[in-house]
Amino acid sequence: MYSQTIKRIVPMADWLPRYAKSDLPGDVIAGGIVAVMLVPQAMAYAMLAGLPPQVGLYASILPLVAYSALGSSRALAVGPVAIASLMTASALGAIVEAGTVNYVAAALILAALSGFILLAMGIARLGVLVNFLSHPVISGFTSAAALVIGVSQLKHLLGIDVPRGGTFTDTLAAIAVRLGDTNLTAASLGLGTIAVLLAMRGPFGRGLSRLGLPSAIVTPATKTGPLAAVALTTLAVWLFELDRSAGVAIVGHIPAGLPPLGLPSFDTALWADLLPAALLISIGGFLESVSVAKALASKRRQKIDANQELVALGTSNIAAAVSGGYPVTGGFSRSVVNFTAGANTPLAALITAALIAVTVVALTPLFHYLPRATLAAVILVAITNLIDLKTLRDTWTYNKADAASLAATFLSVLIAGVEAGIVFGLAVSLALYLWRTSRPHIAVVGRLGETEHFRNITRHTVQTTPGVLALRVDESLYFANASYLEDYLLRAIADDKSIDHVVLICSAVNFIDASALETLEDVISRLRDAGVTLHLAEVKGPVTDKLQRTAFLEHLSPGKMYLSTHDAMRALASGKAPTTA
Amino acid sequence: MYSQTIKRIVPMADWLPRYAKSDLPGDVIAGGIVAVMLVPQAMAYAMLAGLPPQVGLYASILPLVAYSALGSSRALAVGPVAIASLMTASALGAIVEAGTVNYVAAALILAALSGFILLAMGIARLGVLVNFLSHPVISGFTSAAALVIGVSQLKHLLGIDVPRGGTFTDTLAAIAVRLGDTNLTAASLGLGTIAVLLAMRGPFGRGLSRLGLPSAIVTPATKTGPLAAVALTTLAVWLFELDRSAGVAIVGHIPAGLPPLGLPSFDTALWADLLPAALLISIGGFLESVSVAKALASKRRQKIDANQELVALGTSNIAAAVSGGYPVTGGFSRSVVNFTAGANTPLAALITAALIAVTVVALTPLFHYLPRATLAAVILVAITNLIDLKTLRDTWTYNKADAASLAATFLSVLIAGVEAGIVFGLAVSLALYLWRTSRPHIAVVGRLGETEHFRNITRHTVQTTPGVLALRVDESLYFANASYLEDYLLRAIADDKSIDHVVLICSAVNFIDASALETLEDVISRLRDAGVTLHLAEVKGPVTDKLQRTAFLEHLSPGKMYLSTHDAMRALASGKAPTTA
Repeated sequence: MYSQTIKRIVPMADWLPRYAKSDLPGDVIAGGIVAVMLVPQAMAYAMLAGLPPQVGLYASILPLVAYSALGSSRALAVGPVAIASLMTASALGAIVEAGTVNYVAAALILAALSGFILLAMGIARLGVLVNFLSHPVISGFTSAAALVIGVSQLKHLLGIDVPRGGTFTDTLAAIAVRLGDTNLTAASLGLGTIAVLLAMRGPFGRGLSRLGLPSAIVTPATKTGPLAAVALTTLAVWLFELDRSAGVAIVGHIPAGLPPLGLPSFDTALWADLLPAALLISIGGFLESVSVAKALASKRRQKIDANQELVALGTSNIAAAVSGGYPVTGGFSRSVVNFTAGANTPLAALITAALIAVTVVALTPLFHYLPRATLAAVILVAITNLIDLKTLRDTWTYNKADAASLAATFLSVLIAGVEAGIVFGLAVSLALYLWRTSRPHIAVVGRLGETEHFRNITRHTVQTTPGVLALRVDESLYFANASYLEDYLLRAIADDKSIDHVVLICSAVNFIDASALETLEDVISRLRDAGVTLHLAEVKGPVTDKLQRTAFLEHLSPGKMYLSTHDAMRALASGKAPTTA
Repeated sequence: MYSQTIKRIVPMADWLPRYAKSDLPGDVIAGGIVAVMLVPQAMAYAMLAGLPPQVGLYASILPLVAYSALGSSRALAVGPVAIASLMTASALGAIVEAGTVNYVAAALILAALSGFILLAMGIARLGVLVNFLSHPVISGFTSAAALVIGVSQLKHLLGIDVPRGGTFTDTLAAIAVRLGDTNLTAASLGLGTIAVLLAMRGPFGRGLSRLGLPSAIVTPATKTGPLAAVALTTLAVWLFELDRSAGVAIVGHIPAGLPPLGLPSFDTALWADLLPAALLISIGGFLESVSVAKALASKRRQKIDANQELVALGTSNIAAAVSGGYPVTGGFSRSVVNFTAGANTPLAALITAALIAVTVVALTPLFHYLPRATLAAVILVAITNLIDLKTLRDTWTYNKADAASLAATFLSVLIAGVEAGIVFGLAVSLALYLWRTSRPHIAVVGRLGETEHFRNITRHTVQTTPGVLALRVDESLYFANASYLEDYLLRAIADDKSIDHVVLICSAVNFIDASALETLEDVISRLRDAGVTLHLAEVKGPVTDKLQRTAFLEHLSPGKMYLSTHDAMRALASGKAPTTA
């Protein structure tokens, strides 16, 4: 029992002792490929976040170890990712100056805060909270964030000097104005890298597949593109001294050695300032992470525990905070590569971490002449996957309200920035849901033929009973729609003076809150004043239980609660001839 | 047609030309009684708002004229009210210093802003928006606001000096510390007034009723109490010079003459600062007003148009802004008095306005020696009606979530102030609703006897079919509950390996949003991977229409959409013997 608990809290205690030798080749290959992919990405994303490149590498060592110990996914590859890097830049840019020591220290605090938030949510089992971000909001946010990232990289790609900060449109305008300043050498290196990467992903991959190679070889092979581009362009800059002769911006000196361990500074004002951003980064990162983990797990019939993932990602971020990193989460494409390259257990992530550690200790001088345009190209190609027009099109066909919340999120990210954008998108999607439920569908129903079924009189040929109005309300009754129902009922009896009885069919009413109960009691009195009796039918068990705790049934009298619409109509129709509507 | 439009926009054009002489006596008496009640209340509420007493009187002239022209209620008595005055004090106190000219000017801006907000909402027909404030939130807010008002008046009642501003608990603590400073003369006048007012309302009213007098005389007669108390205590202060000899705080000099007409100052920064408070005051005032108007109208089978009320109250507030007033709305007890005293048309309000105008022109010297303790007593007695413990008790019995939002609103008003309190209450009630719908009730159902009805297996003795799981989900499917359903379904098939078919009964599903549709398609794939087929039954017409616009039915295949659960179970049970659960 005791060891079961440990295995639940630390999944590594489950898989490591019974590690099968046969899993080793897959883990080693996958771990190596991910490392090859991660080195340029980690540096690029760190620079996107406004941090020195080594911070991205530091964030790819200890956090991976922490996740491999605690994570419930076997294939998730944790580390720096594009959107969390953008949000880090946005959060820190608003508070401290980019490039200063303070900025690096603030990134550690951001990672620590994100870690504590995720850990606390996991311990409180609040994984369900993330369900309140709807898919259209996530899709609109991701597409817009990808555009923002893309524009932020254009200046590096073209070698143009543009002030940091400012919204999407500011940056775009600044680049347009300075387009004449383009450094043609840097742009050639950058655009060349893009061409190579797209070729690796498209024609090269298809060619390998056509040769009959399995996808376990093809997918990883195409992912070596970034490292190849890094090697070639770095070599070019070094050989031809392009940094001095042509003014190509390079990464420059990267300190060698393992990341410095230490606690982030306890500047409480800074912690408080960064809290809202940390909340958004941690929830956003968790969403990205858990969705890719679930997708990969279901392919192998494994299970992902959302709350365990919160704990694991929280610990990973705390690990990033004590080892010179910045906020991390599970990356989409990297995890897919890890999975496809054959990762069987989290040992693959430990191998990746070891290789990155070797890189920071021994290989950093190799990246001195790496052009920034190459890193920008790596990011630009990586984010094209994030722009998702298909969801917008599909959503528009299916449901205009969902499409509106997608578009609102998208536009507000571009106009107001990533943080305001996601909050606004969340608010819009909740508001649209409340608006929808505040105006419920109400159908006048009649008897279908000689059956006991009652359906909408506008959709079916049905029989109604004179003087009896049977209404089916297709929504739970709560404060936001109680007056809508009230107005509907009062208008209905004002429009048709012959009505003596109204039957409210509650088959779709899953609860009645206190406001709606009060309104219902008012309606009963007003109908009674007008000589009309209200009855209820098909009230569900849990709703009936609650109503019986109140004086509602006395209010309803002489109206009754009928088990079925059929019972109600039979009782009220006695002596009246039905009419066909 | 043209004149119909005018009558719809300006109801006065409807009732005034066909005014019946027989309505005059009722209107004159009601108008007079309301004026008698309004004079002390208007001064008291203005002082509660931190304004000079004459501002309350000014706010009781033009706004009443505006409402009588545009309002759809025949009995609503507009003017200064307790809660809007408290909110005015809270909004202005945070921005400008009480008692300064600036403060009075800011009150005009607040009235203008409230007026424009209400008018804009009326023109945009947004009257329905107020439905999003649930009854428990309103009840909790009102009770707490009454307590805050009560405590703010205690210092005047006892003649203690306490700094303005600060929260409920601050003020309470300050009074407790200075209790020894009580001015016994002032306190005697105040407590005496309270005793008289309570006696008038209780034993005196019951006595008159026992004499067989109709309530049209009794109710107004009991409402002359405040004016009588004002007259007696003022006389006492004047005769015995209590202001000088005993230090009783008096109202002092009130300038005579009609209110100064003029536009409020256009200080844009101040307008922007006051906007959030104006929004809360206008919506809060509208809610109070429309609920009393509706209650009175239904007693005479008249109708209230919420959007017309927004226009009328908006115009009344603009009238207050240009005539030296402050935010006004329809008051509860005053409207009831107006109605009970026999007001037949809005002419009663015009008569009240005329009498108040006479008061400010000729009678203000009479109020010089009016003790502030008397006005505090008038307010204290008036607000006892606002404290509503019954709703808390009833709500607790009926629905814990509603009771929680009531209690949260109540406590946050006391702790954080009126504005933060109502926003917090609103947020809590929406969050609880979303939380409830995010965890829908899901029932496993079976066939009831030999019928075509399928009910919950835990509540009824029903027959189930081996290998077929029939689930009824009692909520519309949307982003917040899609993963809940997903987890439920995956757990269900993991727990019972014998399941081949799952039938999802959608009789209570009123819509499926884009997120839920995507999740449902994922679930179908995962169930298929596990060898289980998902079917739907009893999908409503509007939901089916939308699903048919997408590729959902192809995803569902080989699963089917059945018209009824009966059809689904008959098709899936072929060759299997039913089991009794």
